[in-house]
Amino acid sequence: MEYVKKTVLEITDHMREVVEKLSEKDMEKMIDMLIRCQRVFVHGVGRSGLVGRAFATRLSHLKFDVFVVGDTITPAVKEGDLFISISGSGETGSVVNAAKGAKKAGAKVFSLTSNTSSTIAGVSDAILRVKGRTKNDHKKKFYTSEQVMGKHAPLSPLGTLFEDTCQILLDGVIVELMRKLRKTEDDLARRHSNIE
Amino acid sequence: MEYVKKTVLEITDHMREVVEKLSEKDMEKMIDMLIRCQRVFVHGVGRSGLVGRAFATRLSHLKFDVFVVGDTITPAVKEGDLFISISGSGETGSVVNAAKGAKKAGAKVFSLTSNTSSTIAGVSDAILRVKGRTKNDHKKKFYTSEQVMGKHAPLSPLGTLFEDTCQILLDGVIVELMRKLRKTEDDLARRHSNIE
Amino acid sequence: MEYVKKTVLEITDHMREVVEKLSEKDMEKMIDMLIRCQRVFVHGVGRSGLVGRAFATRLSHLKFDVFVVGDTITPAVKEGDLFISISGSGETGSVVNAAKGAKKAGAKVFSLTSNTSSTIAGVSDAILRVKGRTKNDHKKKFYTSEQVMGKHAPLSPLGTLFEDTCQILLDGVIVELMRKLRKTEDDLARRHSNIE
Amino acid sequence: MEYVKKTVLEITDHMREVVEKLSEKDMEKMIDMLIRCQRVFVHGVGRSGLVGRAFATRLSHLKFDVFVVGDTITPAVKEGDLFISISGSGETGSVVNAAKGAKKAGAKVFSLTSNTSSTIAGVSDAILRVKGRTKNDHKKKFYTSEQVMGKHAPLSPLGTLFEDTCQILLDGVIVELMRKLRKTEDDLARRHSNIE
Repeated sequence: MEYVKKTVLEITDHMREVVEKLSEKDMEKMIDMLIRCQRVFVHGVGRSGLVGRAFATRLSHLKFDVFVVGDTITPAVKEGDLFISISGSGETGSVVNAAKGAKKAGAKVFSLTSNTSSTIAGVSDAILRVKGRTKNDHKKKFYTSEQVMGKHAPLSPLGTLFEDTCQILLDGVIVELMRKLRKTEDDLARRHSNIE
Repeated sequence: MEYVKKTVLEITDHMREVVEKLSEKDMEKMIDMLIRCQRVFVHGVGRSGLVGRAFATRLSHLKFDVFVVGDTITPAVKEGDLFISISGSGETGSVVNAAKGAKKAGAKVFSLTSNTSSTIAGVSDAILRVKGRTKNDHKKKFYTSEQVMGKHAPLSPLGTLFEDTCQILLDGVIVELMRKLRKTEDDLARRHSNIE
Repeated sequence: MEYVKKTVLEITDHMREVVEKLSEKDMEKMIDMLIRCQRVFVHGVGRSGLVGRAFATRLSHLKFDVFVVGDTITPAVKEGDLFISISGSGETGSVVNAAKGAKKAGAKVFSLTSNTSSTIAGVSDAILRVKGRTKNDHKKKFYTSEQVMGKHAPLSPLGTLFEDTCQILLDGVIVELMRKLRKTEDDLARRHSNIE
Repeated sequence: MEYVKKTVLEITDHMREVVEKLSEKDMEKMIDMLIRCQRVFVHGVGRSGLVGRAFATRLSHLKFDVFVVGDTITPAVKEGDLFISISGSGETGSVVNAAKGAKKAGAKVFSLTSNTSSTIAGVSDAILRVKGRTKNDHKKKFYTSEQVMGKHAPLSPLGTLFEDTCQILLDGVIVELMRKLRKTEDDLARRHSNIE
């Protein structure tokens, strides 16, 4: 299980590096937008979508009115809503289109992406840059260089670093919100699904 | 496409027969429970679960506070909630367990089933009997008889008759609710997802 | 429950009318493409997506190698695959984009739509026209005319007629496939999920 | 964003501690069962289910024949299959029932749980113990003690530690499998969904 250990070390190192360099201003902005909005919509595809769902689950435990694009119940987006997009490359077609639609409907758009010059970043009112090899880096030339290979592949193939780092950062956002909204773990447990 | 036509005729015949013999009292009870409850939870597995989702989608268009068991966001069930279970056989393990859990949590349970003497019927505060060959009939002895074979198989294998008939009946319930709540199609369209 | 009955009558009338006028050639084409392809992908959003899932469930019971766009497991589309799109209006953004992507990847595209001059129809190798008021008709001028109101609204709001009719037609396609592939209901039952 | 940082530190510390103490034997067993099985089924509810889906996504990129309980397509489980259950408490009703069903159908059961004396552990052919506060610890007496509060709450409410640690461990398992099966990142990318 040599590679299990190596992978856990590499990913946790990356997580700590990202959180160390995280923009305080962007993070505060995200927290502020979450607290001020009326409803939250979360969107991502593939594993980024799963990260969004994990975050949405906890937001609902915190009594946020939250919806996941792709779930059965997704009402129309409107003014006052916060639309959160998750895309490492920032170029995933359906994520970009949905964000544009949300913006047109009057919502604020916040995105988590590795790519600050991406289309999703351009559409967003605010972004949180989460460094990671994204699935598009895979196609880039520098991907074959020893330096990059040695550092990020194949211990964290495709979007792994971005996805896992987003997951843990968003769990941090939940704790930050708990403090700001004076919610206890008991409050969360009361909202946790009781249908197993 | 001989069998496509035959199937559509058989299924629509069955739908009409079911609605003709539908218990007016049970149907009124369902409408009443829907109007009085605070939130609706819908549950079914497999194709019955899809029928439940189609119903939940329209309920949300009607501004009901509705959740689908299995979706990302499913808060704790509590008193005042209506829990709707869909199971042809009425014996699907996880559906029965979830209904028991909902009842214990203080919710009212309503179920759609073909089997009025099933476990789910026993757990429920009220039921709507929707006749159909269910997937368990398949295992019963009389299934091999020509009479049954001729009438229901294989033009509507497994739970098809139950599922399709529930779907259309629940679309009828939506129209009944629109009338009772004085909602127009425009009201529904306003809540329809605008994120494609 | 006056409107439940009226709705069931209207929808079953519509189903019968559609199947009566169905293009035999288009239906044979669909069956043929299904039998010849290596894998099937099904795509739709909202209630059309649920109809696609109900169809995919039965295809898997028939041992087709089938995937639903939006499920966890969706491998890359490639040559030899059949991509089935379901969209009443034929203009749903993400459905159109996915179909274009599938075509570019070398798959054949088949679509069910009400609108033969829609973008999805243009992208498709073959289509099956399934008449219905689609959610876009709602916005058209003639929608307010008494004639249309009287016939289709509000007994079947938004895409209801299209969705329910697709569902039952696709159940007919399953029976047609069972005959062609000499599958019995027992064959289907053996593949039916045994995890409840 | 003080608590975002604190949370990331606590969770990454926990991840490293768990991987450091991980049973080499149990991990090798898991890898071995994955390589030998014919098909993999993954099951969990809530956030544990999302972790399972993230793992299943990568398994499919590695060309495993993998299914997620709760997805549209879930064929019958049979001999030769590996059924992977994820439950921190090891007592989640539907997870336990599904695992029992899988075992009865002839599959091998592997589970990830914090609780080695749980029902799911009893049902399983092999387990991987992943330490974490699980959602049931929340109800235990010692939960209110300062020691526990200081260490695990509220920086990682409910099942957070278990879920996030499973996620990263399973990403390590993917890399281990890549090495054993001599798969490159290019192999994974070829199977990555090309429908966005």
